[in-house]
Amino acid sequence: MCAPILRKRLSAFPPGGIVRAMADASEEVLHGNLLALSKAISWIENGDPRGREVLDRLSSHIGSAVRMGLTGPPGVGKSTLVDEITSLLRGRGHRVGIVAVDPTSPFTGGALLGDRIRMAKVAETDDVFMRSMASRGASGGLSRATQDAADLLDASGRTWILIETVGVGQSEIEVSRGTDCVIVVLSPESGDGIQAMKSGLLEIADLVVINKADRVGADKLEYDLRSAFELGLRSRKEVPILLTEAYRGKGVPELMAAVEGWVAARRGDGRFDERRRGNTETRLKQIVEYLVHRNLWESNGTSRKLSEFTSDVLGRRRTIYGAAEQLLKEALP
Amino acid sequence: MCAPILRKRLSAFPPGGIVRAMADASEEVLHGNLLALSKAISWIENGDPRGREVLDRLSSHIGSAVRMGLTGPPGVGKSTLVDEITSLLRGRGHRVGIVAVDPTSPFTGGALLGDRIRMAKVAETDDVFMRSMASRGASGGLSRATQDAADLLDASGRTWILIETVGVGQSEIEVSRGTDCVIVVLSPESGDGIQAMKSGLLEIADLVVINKADRVGADKLEYDLRSAFELGLRSRKEVPILLTEAYRGKGVPELMAAVEGWVAARRGDGRFDERRRGNTETRLKQIVEYLVHRNLWESNGTSRKLSEFTSDVLGRRRTIYGAAEQLLKEALP
Repeated sequence: MCAPILRKRLSAFPPGGIVRAMADASEEVLHGNLLALSKAISWIENGDPRGREVLDRLSSHIGSAVRMGLTGPPGVGKSTLVDEITSLLRGRGHRVGIVAVDPTSPFTGGALLGDRIRMAKVAETDDVFMRSMASRGASGGLSRATQDAADLLDASGRTWILIETVGVGQSEIEVSRGTDCVIVVLSPESGDGIQAMKSGLLEIADLVVINKADRVGADKLEYDLRSAFELGLRSRKEVPILLTEAYRGKGVPELMAAVEGWVAARRGDGRFDERRRGNTETRLKQIVEYLVHRNLWESNGTSRKLSEFTSDVLGRRRTIYGAAEQLLKEALP
Repeated sequence: MCAPILRKRLSAFPPGGIVRAMADASEEVLHGNLLALSKAISWIENGDPRGREVLDRLSSHIGSAVRMGLTGPPGVGKSTLVDEITSLLRGRGHRVGIVAVDPTSPFTGGALLGDRIRMAKVAETDDVFMRSMASRGASGGLSRATQDAADLLDASGRTWILIETVGVGQSEIEVSRGTDCVIVVLSPESGDGIQAMKSGLLEIADLVVINKADRVGADKLEYDLRSAFELGLRSRKEVPILLTEAYRGKGVPELMAAVEGWVAARRGDGRFDERRRGNTETRLKQIVEYLVHRNLWESNGTSRKLSEFTSDVLGRRRTIYGAAEQLLKEALP
């Protein structure tokens, strides 16, 4: 299936430099070159068109890795759990890719502290590639960049891709939902059952992990969760609850056995593919909106108009919806 | 300034029913009718065009209320603080509007538990109007609905509008930033300094409140915050830190004195208006994107195409970006 797409794309380019450079970058990602992978993810993150080119070229090599989302409130030990899962998978010969979404600093525009804190924990080798991403911009943007990066990791030969997010905001929840299997991580310290339900987190959980299970309150949390599931939020049988103490690896093999069983069952009955279809449709919508966003706000003409119309709204010469309609009319052909 | 706008809008309508109904609804919101206000906010929330009509008609009556954002991690006591601030303001003869953003349940599409939990606390009277909003949809959508609702509350004669959000996700942070003054609420239990910084919250704070200041760890949290500010995140002098025990009203008058002083100073030196200009510009962009979103996904033709193109991506007949570009080309004129 691959050859015709590649030929078609290649023919759209003038011969020479760009074609060769992109073909080279794609080849290197495909062969697992970490530097090329890192560069391509930066292109994706920054909206550099070269990222999209690499992705297009690799599209026939994407789809075999399992994508697992790990999400939960701050401080429950998600990073530690990701580290432990990674070393377990690595021990079994898997190659692992990790995308960690850190809330963006609105001032620097980058991930705040994320890289520095994580660097110490996960050693990057050929088997493990870890990338922090800032949650900047619109929610479609975050989800787009995360999933594009997961595609690149997939093409580079990783068999497991772990996507870690702080699970409170809408855009972070959106990122989690784009995976094959969502693990919601809680801890006895992360607040009571009502808070977890209020955040909408439990409803996207395929599996729930109670980490720091040696702390006071773990039993109570498990009881509260089971009650919540019984009260009709989801069927109790469908959402396994697992206990871990990630800081010393306890419960992690059992967790991964549960995940693998869950995935295998869903592959068997077709729900795995069905979910991927839903995820792809959502992602397609997000990319369309991203393209619109880029067309609207990246031209000089629009930003001058925007400033003019803002003055009109403040001066009550236009209503805000009236101004928006006019702006749209003038910006899109 | 009001009359010409009204005349112009009215003339765009056919004579009779709709014009009178909208004029009536606007009049009633203007005169503080709670039922009309509630109905108009529902229109806004559901994207019903009548919401926008009412807003257009009232545009000359919007702008005098102070909009205050209260945000912070789950469980720090934001709701209690909002209640206490409300009764203080009410005691001084102010009319108060409250918009509380609750994380959306992805299953029911509504605010999860929000209304039920809050109902017990704030008694709705002519002086106080409280509204829960679900954080559904795109971030532009949430911010749009919240600010439109604040406009309606403003037009209905409220002098203070409090907008409460869980301050972790990007879209919730966006809502906070759209206000005149952002109060970040933390508690000794809400995690350490690094977590607060990681979430990007401290950087949008105009004032910081340490609630539950009688709990263990309040001193340490204050010290950590001051250190963080000193380390260059923001100048320490610019971000006052206040201690409250909201459950018994302690510290709330001091907090409101600080807020009022802060607002008065900014009105004096022009920074208040400057910020409103920035907020209006951001909001205008959000409304444009909302209109695009509506045009793209609410037509039947597009949703059929979307499903067809998803199959193409999964069958590797199109790359995902290629499919998105084609979809956009066919959806917009």
